[in-house]
Amino acid sequence: MPSYIAPVRDTRFVINEVIDLSSYSDLPGFESVTPDLIDTLVEEAGRFASEVLAPLNTVGDRDGCTRHPDGTVTTAPGFKEAYAQFQQAGWGSISLPAAFGGQGLPHTLGFVVEEFLDGANIAFGLYPGLAVGAVSALAAAGTDEQKQTYLPKLVSGEWLGTMNLTEAHAGTDLGLLRAKAEPQADGSYAISGTKIFISSGEHDLTENIIHLVLAKTPNALEGSKGISLFVVPKFLVNDDGSLGARNTLSCGAIEHKMGLNGSATCVMNYDNAKGWLVGEENRGLAAMFVMMNAARLAVGIQGLGVAEAAYQNGTNYARERRQGRALTGPAEPNEKADPIIVHPDVRRMLMNAKALTEGLRALALWSGVLVDLAHKAKTPEARQEADDLLGLLTPVVKGYTTEKAFATAVNMQQVYGGHGYIKEWGMEQFVRDARIPMIYEGTNGVQAMDLCGRKLPKDGGRAIQAFFKLVDDEIAAAQDDPQLAEIATRLGKALGEQKAATMWFLQNAMTNPDNLGAGAFNYLELMGIVSVGLMWLRMAKVASRKLAAGDGDKAFYEAKLTTARYFAERMTPEAGALRRTIEAGSAAMMALPAEAFGTSG
Amino acid sequence: MPSYIAPVRDTRFVINEVIDLSSYSDLPGFESVTPDLIDTLVEEAGRFASEVLAPLNTVGDRDGCTRHPDGTVTTAPGFKEAYAQFQQAGWGSISLPAAFGGQGLPHTLGFVVEEFLDGANIAFGLYPGLAVGAVSALAAAGTDEQKQTYLPKLVSGEWLGTMNLTEAHAGTDLGLLRAKAEPQADGSYAISGTKIFISSGEHDLTENIIHLVLAKTPNALEGSKGISLFVVPKFLVNDDGSLGARNTLSCGAIEHKMGLNGSATCVMNYDNAKGWLVGEENRGLAAMFVMMNAARLAVGIQGLGVAEAAYQNGTNYARERRQGRALTGPAEPNEKADPIIVHPDVRRMLMNAKALTEGLRALALWSGVLVDLAHKAKTPEARQEADDLLGLLTPVVKGYTTEKAFATAVNMQQVYGGHGYIKEWGMEQFVRDARIPMIYEGTNGVQAMDLCGRKLPKDGGRAIQAFFKLVDDEIAAAQDDPQLAEIATRLGKALGEQKAATMWFLQNAMTNPDNLGAGAFNYLELMGIVSVGLMWLRMAKVASRKLAAGDGDKAFYEAKLTTARYFAERMTPEAGALRRTIEAGSAAMMALPAEAFGTSG
Repeated sequence: MPSYIAPVRDTRFVINEVIDLSSYSDLPGFESVTPDLIDTLVEEAGRFASEVLAPLNTVGDRDGCTRHPDGTVTTAPGFKEAYAQFQQAGWGSISLPAAFGGQGLPHTLGFVVEEFLDGANIAFGLYPGLAVGAVSALAAAGTDEQKQTYLPKLVSGEWLGTMNLTEAHAGTDLGLLRAKAEPQADGSYAISGTKIFISSGEHDLTENIIHLVLAKTPNALEGSKGISLFVVPKFLVNDDGSLGARNTLSCGAIEHKMGLNGSATCVMNYDNAKGWLVGEENRGLAAMFVMMNAARLAVGIQGLGVAEAAYQNGTNYARERRQGRALTGPAEPNEKADPIIVHPDVRRMLMNAKALTEGLRALALWSGVLVDLAHKAKTPEARQEADDLLGLLTPVVKGYTTEKAFATAVNMQQVYGGHGYIKEWGMEQFVRDARIPMIYEGTNGVQAMDLCGRKLPKDGGRAIQAFFKLVDDEIAAAQDDPQLAEIATRLGKALGEQKAATMWFLQNAMTNPDNLGAGAFNYLELMGIVSVGLMWLRMAKVASRKLAAGDGDKAFYEAKLTTARYFAERMTPEAGALRRTIEAGSAAMMALPAEAFGTSG
Repeated sequence: MPSYIAPVRDTRFVINEVIDLSSYSDLPGFESVTPDLIDTLVEEAGRFASEVLAPLNTVGDRDGCTRHPDGTVTTAPGFKEAYAQFQQAGWGSISLPAAFGGQGLPHTLGFVVEEFLDGANIAFGLYPGLAVGAVSALAAAGTDEQKQTYLPKLVSGEWLGTMNLTEAHAGTDLGLLRAKAEPQADGSYAISGTKIFISSGEHDLTENIIHLVLAKTPNALEGSKGISLFVVPKFLVNDDGSLGARNTLSCGAIEHKMGLNGSATCVMNYDNAKGWLVGEENRGLAAMFVMMNAARLAVGIQGLGVAEAAYQNGTNYARERRQGRALTGPAEPNEKADPIIVHPDVRRMLMNAKALTEGLRALALWSGVLVDLAHKAKTPEARQEADDLLGLLTPVVKGYTTEKAFATAVNMQQVYGGHGYIKEWGMEQFVRDARIPMIYEGTNGVQAMDLCGRKLPKDGGRAIQAFFKLVDDEIAAAQDDPQLAEIATRLGKALGEQKAATMWFLQNAMTNPDNLGAGAFNYLELMGIVSVGLMWLRMAKVASRKLAAGDGDKAFYEAKLTTARYFAERMTPEAGALRRTIEAGSAAMMALPAEAFGTSG
């Protein structure tokens, strides 16, 4: 059975040394964030994830969730008890608003907890994870009454929440949805329709579940301009806050999925269920996007969590399993064979995993800082700057992280050889679980179009120009340190490729938008390389400084420098290939008629 | 439920027009191979695969194989009946030796049948697939008596065979194995030990199963020089060919796998089972390698089959599923949304799938020609040349095909969005099934070391130099055709990268073999790009000629030209990145101590 130990040390390095979170103490909610508080929180969250959630990960996969004939759903053995502990300890409310009982701490710290939960048990992590989105949407668009009714218990974790977007025929294209909302005399709406893929749609973890549901009011406009958002509780809430009547909604089935079996993914039937409009009529998509952006970052972190877990187990196996001899001669001549970590190809997979998980962690936690800065920075300019950058990075954190997380899980399974394919070893579960983050909350193709079609051109390219300047400045600042110069130069080369690709879009996408669509996914990957490269430059800078100062753990900082060099040497060259692929444009891609594909072609 | 239609048309194109198989009619076994025979065989094999095997693919996945308390194993419903039809029709003996009742037809045709079986139902395909290896090993190293006893019934498919290599602690490093073979007075050996991951180790498809087992005789040398090969039938065979006593071997368990559930992967216990030495004592690994090389090509073809099946279903879904609008304006304004095939990112995945499956098919079928030429070409020089090329291409067909097949299955699952993650749609099965070919018969890392450590330097680099000349010549010959010039030039650029990487190995691997190991996997990918690029140049050449002659199906040949261009423009640029990655060498990769990985680092 695989093991999981929360990456406490690396997390503390990123927060305290790279981001230096306590230096933001002038922001609201950051006042009390000292390195000591951070260390305690990270360690305690890590302990909870490793000790309580990790042992349930294979249980959830094996036993899944059970729907009973009456429509109730039981989660896998141990989940309910673990959730009670989770809620009791307040792990779900770290960065939720203090106004509704949350701890109001920086999002970076909330992201740390998310990563640990997901690494230990992604299926478990999804239950509270969805509630975060529900809280954001209600906090942003709900009435005061709605906020008072739902937020305190959602924030405390006493209740959980869901997002109901997808219908069988309407996924990415929400404009096609058919769920209906009929206004009632009492100001509520009667919601009817069937939603699919609803994570945590029904379960036994909490006594109430607050559904946020997209539906169309009568005579609403066609397409995405006619969508409204409703709050639809499983149990109606009485004026005194106690639970009232059971609403007319139910779980029709649990989806049979490739992985994530511990998460109850439900088909939800709404049959004139009582709901209330959240925000303005026909503005549901905008309200939902508040949830979606938070959820997209969360999905990137899910990928990171699973990749970290896979990487740890790949490492353990590579250190223990003995097969063959090092190419340079027996490493342990007294044993019959060397541990496979001596083989360069096994190293390649482990170093890729190390460079990616550590780099992507830094990126995710930095994006957490940006979430707070976008709301809380002192000046409107600073808030705008953070918001620009966050908008640009959100599809990268979601798309690039989940692509590389899946690749990491696959590689770590590969380290196990044939054993990797056998269920009992647990590596194949990581692969199955790591697959879904590439798909949900907008497929990675949708993320790529969000990045290239929306975020790049927005405000005349203000955000991407600011990003380029930021990276350029950090590269320039690194040139004087011989430990960093080569790393910075290679990052500069990758950045040059990204600039060239951006320019190519500028020159070729106006006349033919397919040229943008054709290269968007490659551009997402290219920006992923530059973003993670930037993180490695930052980490290397800290490591170089600490080593020069003779400060602390030499081996740890040397490993950081080596891994930064590895990323620069072996993982940035792809940037050039991506640019050239983008510059091939859409002509050959779009030339064939639909009939030319498959066996008919 | 996914569907499968054998790619009959593309297969005929490759065999009749690109390879021109009937032009080899002067080779033994090729005399009767006319385009008519090829067409009939391909169509009939395709029909059998699509009609009989494809409907059982999801059944096999869902129901798996059942081991009963007495150690017998039942395959999934329908498998036994399908196998009876398969055997009756002689689909297993296409390219098996005529001397033992096989049809003695070209391996290319045998490979076609394999691809169709694997595409329709990879788990089914594995049962007869393993027998091919057993036949090769016995034919190459067995005594006349062994051949007479086992080969006719293995060739006819009346019996099936297995390869027993792996033990729990001995996978890639077979030198560690512990199974024992004690010589007996009657000339047989008593085989004892436990083997794992044994495909088709026990089942109900045939009345007898012929196991080929690696074991060590008493006082055998340590390591791989002390391994011998034994033939160990499930039922002993009487002198008259009838079945005798049940041998003392049994299936201890069926492995719980990520996929390939229809295939009975067994733990096999040998308890003083009666076996006979095949070939010389201590030379078992050499004899086994005869099986392994055939099996490696077969595994590449498995990957291709699954990728083709996934590609077909991805195509169907992309043509039917409607979401959103084309970037260039509504393609079907009268519908509420366009089919998703209008979206460039969906196209990207489909074009990748088309370029890879068609290119890899051409490569696999060409390697089939080389198998025959290596044995049957008229002159020793021609045989040597084919053997050199085949040795070089075998790890590429195994490694590169299975990497790209898995990537294709993942992409085609992605085309389905959320539905791709749901079992009922069948796409996730392709991903799970396509995962194992990257692992077994030598992981792809092992393939990469076979290519770079063994095949490149062999005979002073004779094979790779011949490959370079071959590609150079075909590029040069294409320059005069304006349809081909650009495609050829881009292939030339990729070839230049491969030459540079080869030179870098030459200059840097002698002093430090880790430099070879560090770049081997990247080199495998690089050579894969060049090899598939060569196939696309060949296919484009035929298409250009046919179009110029106004010959036949214009749309088909135009699609070939467009896809060749797509591959050249969008899939060869990676070659440059791979070279630069190789040139980074092993320093950063190998620098860290083992403790620097995982949470301890």
